Amino acid sequence: MQNETMPNLLIKRAHLTPNRTAIYFQEQALTFNELYERTVKASGRLQALGLRKGQFAGILLKNHLDTVVILFALQLLGVRAVILNNRLTPAELVWQLKDSKASFLILEDTYEETEMVINQQHHPLMTITKSKLSQIEPEEPVIQEEINLNEICTIMYTSGTTGYPKGVMQTFGNHWWSSTGSALNLGTMESDCWLCSVPLFHISGFSILMRSVIYGMPMVLHEHFDVERTIKDIQLKKVTIMSVVGTMLTQIVEALEDRRLPNFFRCMLLGGGPAPLPLLEACVKKEIPVFQSYGMTETSSQIVTLSPEDSLKKLGSAGKPLFPSQLRIELENGEDAKSGTDGEIIVKGPNVTPGYLNRPEATIEKIRHGWFYTGDIGCLDEEGFLYVKDRRSDLIISGGENIYPAEIEAALIAHPAVIDAGVTGINDEKWGQVPAAFIVKKEGIHVSIEELQQFCLERLAKYKVPKAFYFIEQLPRNAAKKLLRRKLREWV
Amino acid sequence: MQNETMPNLLIKRAHLTPNRTAIYFQEQALTFNELYERTVKASGRLQALGLRKGQFAGILLKNHLDTVVILFALQLLGVRAVILNNRLTPAELVWQLKDSKASFLILEDTYEETEMVINQQHHPLMTITKSKLSQIEPEEPVIQEEINLNEICTIMYTSGTTGYPKGVMQTFGNHWWSSTGSALNLGTMESDCWLCSVPLFHISGFSILMRSVIYGMPMVLHEHFDVERTIKDIQLKKVTIMSVVGTMLTQIVEALEDRRLPNFFRCMLLGGGPAPLPLLEACVKKEIPVFQSYGMTETSSQIVTLSPEDSLKKLGSAGKPLFPSQLRIELENGEDAKSGTDGEIIVKGPNVTPGYLNRPEATIEKIRHGWFYTGDIGCLDEEGFLYVKDRRSDLIISGGENIYPAEIEAALIAHPAVIDAGVTGINDEKWGQVPAAFIVKKEGIHVSIEELQQFCLERLAKYKVPKAFYFIEQLPRNAAKKLLRRKLREWV
Repeated sequence: MQNETMPNLLIKRAHLTPNRTAIYFQEQALTFNELYERTVKASGRLQALGLRKGQFAGILLKNHLDTVVILFALQLLGVRAVILNNRLTPAELVWQLKDSKASFLILEDTYEETEMVINQQHHPLMTITKSKLSQIEPEEPVIQEEINLNEICTIMYTSGTTGYPKGVMQTFGNHWWSSTGSALNLGTMESDCWLCSVPLFHISGFSILMRSVIYGMPMVLHEHFDVERTIKDIQLKKVTIMSVVGTMLTQIVEALEDRRLPNFFRCMLLGGGPAPLPLLEACVKKEIPVFQSYGMTETSSQIVTLSPEDSLKKLGSAGKPLFPSQLRIELENGEDAKSGTDGEIIVKGPNVTPGYLNRPEATIEKIRHGWFYTGDIGCLDEEGFLYVKDRRSDLIISGGENIYPAEIEAALIAHPAVIDAGVTGINDEKWGQVPAAFIVKKEGIHVSIEELQQFCLERLAKYKVPKAFYFIEQLPRNAAKKLLRRKLREWV
Repeated sequence: MQNETMPNLLIKRAHLTPNRTAIYFQEQALTFNELYERTVKASGRLQALGLRKGQFAGILLKNHLDTVVILFALQLLGVRAVILNNRLTPAELVWQLKDSKASFLILEDTYEETEMVINQQHHPLMTITKSKLSQIEPEEPVIQEEINLNEICTIMYTSGTTGYPKGVMQTFGNHWWSSTGSALNLGTMESDCWLCSVPLFHISGFSILMRSVIYGMPMVLHEHFDVERTIKDIQLKKVTIMSVVGTMLTQIVEALEDRRLPNFFRCMLLGGGPAPLPLLEACVKKEIPVFQSYGMTETSSQIVTLSPEDSLKKLGSAGKPLFPSQLRIELENGEDAKSGTDGEIIVKGPNVTPGYLNRPEATIEKIRHGWFYTGDIGCLDEEGFLYVKDRRSDLIISGGENIYPAEIEAALIAHPAVIDAGVTGINDEKWGQVPAAFIVKKEGIHVSIEELQQFCLERLAKYKVPKAFYFIEQLPRNAAKKLLRRKLREWV
């Protein structure tokens, strides 16, 4: 097949435009050539450590220039990156590392405790901190001059209705098509510069990295979101595009007060769940161009985005599917929903994952006849614009992080005092949503809310720990004993 | 494979941005939705005529809105377009129609004589003129909602060293990747508008059509190149990009005199053979941004282009290969040439043809291990910029048209008074190059230059007819009797 191979992305970019700025991080600015040279050195170190083409390597790092270098170094070697969410607990991380059969784990120096726990539990894995890695004498790396678009580039874990996280396989082709699909929608110009303060371990952040190299565009990388620094850097670094989730945009709107973003700023690409209409209206008032979008780890970032000319006219819509992608609204009987009628959002396209790592059954369940079943509910208007009504009935989106109730319920039920547990999202002014738990206690055993929270904290990332607990007699279940989370939400 | 299918291009574009202008032609402007509706109707007529998915249909048309509609209508039906050069003689056309096994031929009303000749010679083919087609009652067309990137979209004929034209298969994927590769190089913006006055039957023109639909960008279509209309329309229609060959650019530079192109004009994309340095320097002086490029029918348009930032620094270079593509300079011993050393230009990438229609041997000869052997000579400088030294030793490029000496030689030898003939290119101020013929006459038979010219005119497109004739005793041939065209050029 002719369409399968392509030059290694960073090598090609460094060859095409070596002197363009690739990345701004803290006080540094690196050209693509400098980034490439640093990456070659890092790949030599990783090879000296023992990493080889085709292996899986866990990456547990913060937003940092070094992370960018390591991620590209893995691409040079043909090693697949299992990109881990650094907010997870050691137990959660061990689970994902085992599941992905990762041979190595590269992690922050400050994650010593995590490293210890992982080393106790996960023997066949070799861990190394960032600073130890930097002390290794680099070998001459065996560089993959070409990539195969069907090969796995990255693995990102996402939970599902079962509560067990699944590794989403993202191929080089998925990232490439996502990137070019977005370019055809937003346009690309020489003056473009993309601000990334969303995590690199999420597809929202990682996709900016890929766009930077594919477009030949600088990215401004922040360690984390800081509203004043955002406003300052947009001006200073001439940022034209920024990826945001609702809570970030809310803070920007508030912090701006009477100020305006500069004219060269082209758009806020808004993902991570439907945005409240008042926020979008506030942005219109402050002349902040917002492009709503809809996507997920499985679609390698946005798959539906509102075009520039429709961003005002269709406020609240996520737009239309990117050029290479397709979307349908399917009714329970398998037919297409008429416009205005709700149904399950199903999508197709070269940016959609080929499936879940080592999970053929889950893959078959979610991808049927080439269509990926998102589980989300939405409808199309007469012109074909998507309105996302409800994310997967069980999904809680909190500050851009996806939280799956089943995972929290499983943790809660492990507590000796808990017979049954149900979790749902409740509205939160700052985070959009936060999880709340309904608990059925064992008779005669006392347990406090604080105790349950502490119990969760040891097992779950902090953002997953319920913010509210309700003790009840019995959970609402249907005849088949299936938990009716809809009912829980009504109860809140 | 996930990367194989995509929505039908025009359907998708009309869905995404129905109200954007698709095309300006004469006094008309059509939106993508209007273009789509017209195309659906045309496809209903073509279906009523008998055209079906998978067939080949010859297209012998001029640059016109109707041509655009017919070309897209064929895509809607899944019919492959054999796009014919309307400057060819009936005999040449018959050859290509037979070779491609075309079932239909759609042609201009004014090509009556051509139609007659074709109908006499090529029985299994059904011909229909444009105006007769427009009178057919349209059926409800069976529309291909999806395209397969590996399917043939178009066939364009190109001659070779043998003198027999070969049909270059261009897949949907070839056009897609060419289009996105170019977008990543030049950028795409909402304000873009591309002027097409090069023929739609050449890849230079057809590729603008594809970009228009893929980018959602208007194209201004001219019937032919007219320098004053060009300058006027650039201003009036806010043209930002124009595809040119050397002779067109020369005329623009001269006609501009003291005038300047407007500031919004971004670039002249210059193809069709190496440009003379004085022309490029004149453009610098007049502030006309020129991006030199290198490509051919087999690469579905440019495969190497000079980036904006290098266009002045590397004057005379064709640039670097587009992002998805690769290039090497190969020595005769199969090794890579060092920088500065001449060798054969070989290229690879998803925009490169899978091969020649019904010509497996020619395909194997030109495409080896995934690399396409262009036959052109060039070298790379130390930074990897391509300098094209010489097109295929036997190729004459005249005003953007490729002329293969072997084809003219074969025509000349058919004359009873000619024993042997050799053709080479001579420099020409207006056309860059024109063919010149060296003739060995039969003893005792008289033949005039006028007679030979007339003989050629009946068999070859006008631009292929030699402008100069030299009668000689013997052609320069090597021991293996191979014609040494290099010698001929020295003799001129």
